[in-house]
Amino acid sequence: MLATSRIFRLCTQYSFQCVKRNAFHCSSVRSAKVAVVLSGCGVYTNATPIVLSFQVLSGCGVYDGTEVHEASAILVHLSRNKADVSMFAPDIEQMHAIDHTKGEPMPTNRNVLVESARIARGKVQALSNLTANDYDAVIFPGGFGAAKNLSNFAVDGANMKVNSDVGRIIQEFHKGNKPIGLCCIAPVLAAKVIPGCEVTVGSDQEEGGKWPYAGTAAAIATMGASHQKKDVTDVHVDQKNKIITTPAYMCETALHEIFDGIGKMVTGVLKLTT
Amino acid sequence: MLATSRIFRLCTQYSFQCVKRNAFHCSSVRSAKVAVVLSGCGVYTNATPIVLSFQVLSGCGVYDGTEVHEASAILVHLSRNKADVSMFAPDIEQMHAIDHTKGEPMPTNRNVLVESARIARGKVQALSNLTANDYDAVIFPGGFGAAKNLSNFAVDGANMKVNSDVGRIIQEFHKGNKPIGLCCIAPVLAAKVIPGCEVTVGSDQEEGGKWPYAGTAAAIATMGASHQKKDVTDVHVDQKNKIITTPAYMCETALHEIFDGIGKMVTGVLKLTT
Repeated sequence: MLATSRIFRLCTQYSFQCVKRNAFHCSSVRSAKVAVVLSGCGVYTNATPIVLSFQVLSGCGVYDGTEVHEASAILVHLSRNKADVSMFAPDIEQMHAIDHTKGEPMPTNRNVLVESARIARGKVQALSNLTANDYDAVIFPGGFGAAKNLSNFAVDGANMKVNSDVGRIIQEFHKGNKPIGLCCIAPVLAAKVIPGCEVTVGSDQEEGGKWPYAGTAAAIATMGASHQKKDVTDVHVDQKNKIITTPAYMCETALHEIFDGIGKMVTGVLKLTT
Repeated sequence: MLATSRIFRLCTQYSFQCVKRNAFHCSSVRSAKVAVVLSGCGVYTNATPIVLSFQVLSGCGVYDGTEVHEASAILVHLSRNKADVSMFAPDIEQMHAIDHTKGEPMPTNRNVLVESARIARGKVQALSNLTANDYDAVIFPGGFGAAKNLSNFAVDGANMKVNSDVGRIIQEFHKGNKPIGLCCIAPVLAAKVIPGCEVTVGSDQEEGGKWPYAGTAAAIATMGASHQKKDVTDVHVDQKNKIITTPAYMCETALHEIFDGIGKMVTGVLKLTT
């Protein structure tokens, strides 16, 4: 009854032993190619390195944070490809907290880092502590959190400001020639920070409701980046800038198609780390 | 700029036009086998029916609600198999709201239905409104929400009480000879409601940390059900009772293995609807 007792403790004593154990594993402990991992994430000593990647979260829930299915799909594909994953989020207040049943703001706000931990199963770190030196790749899932908490695109459009740590990290990865993956609305972050880069958010035409946020493509062009039209199961690879983007929930379609497009983004990111 | 304007409206006017459009689609509109769908979900008129299934959520986040990656994996597999999905959750207060970065309760509580809407992208209904007559199958993802909000297993173990609507629905499906899928800790719900049924929560032995909640198997036996040992990528099918279970995050393993086990559960559920 040990394990059941552990569940009881979580409730009766509010202890939390299980969080760290039960969060996402470093795949290195499963990989035959990697012999030694000195720390949970971030350091390896083998000549055949695993890919150390991380995901930047912006809350938990499509309308005020990270789109949970996009984040989950990214993690499934990273897991299957044996990448070692860490998660980060800014330790700031959300722009607002949305009641997702009504689409209206709730009376109290929430913290981006704390809510992101719901996706990360507790294992999320403050974005301010991160430098690109420790990682091979970075991926940004979408959701309105990318347009509300990681930037203010949802308010100012092409005139948006990017969160200072988000901007710093994208620039660090870009200067380091390391791949950056973004999906859904998140490509606007790269469009703003890396002028002239190529990204996709799907179509620049609404096409009968398939692309309800198609106007984003024009905002991307206004920011000086190049929008590339792609379908939801496809990606655009900006080889020069090592930026890989896929439309994800910018498209009104079935979840498994979004999952598959994200799979191509993840494998594209991992390929560019080599 | 229409779509970008829509994003702006969400922020500046707090309107929410996008929620219903951008939530999960009924796959019937994509299926060549189904000609007419009279309502978004729940009614079909074709002799080759799609499967109408639903998922019962219990919040959003592993430590006080539904495990988001389990719920997402279920939705990906249902989508790929062209099932038509609705989501439900009880309109009740959570047992508590856990700060997932600390493992400690937060000062204010949250509503199960409202938080579940973060996974459902707004499209979630009160569980009290549901009868099994309208659906072919039901699936319960895990997370502590199943043991805290759908039941009080986390407090009372084998002596737990099941939420009245949860108990009613499981009984309705069982009496109707319709399949019930459950993963992670959720199989305790079937064990309590359907005495003598067979379920798996993985192993009854901890095995060096692989199965940290292994004691749950003993609680299931105490409730009069039969625990069947299975690995995380496998399922147990109780043919007599049409109950399909898989360990999911009861196991300390890589996310893609949990994803694959859930895939077998979903296809097993769909197979039993025929």
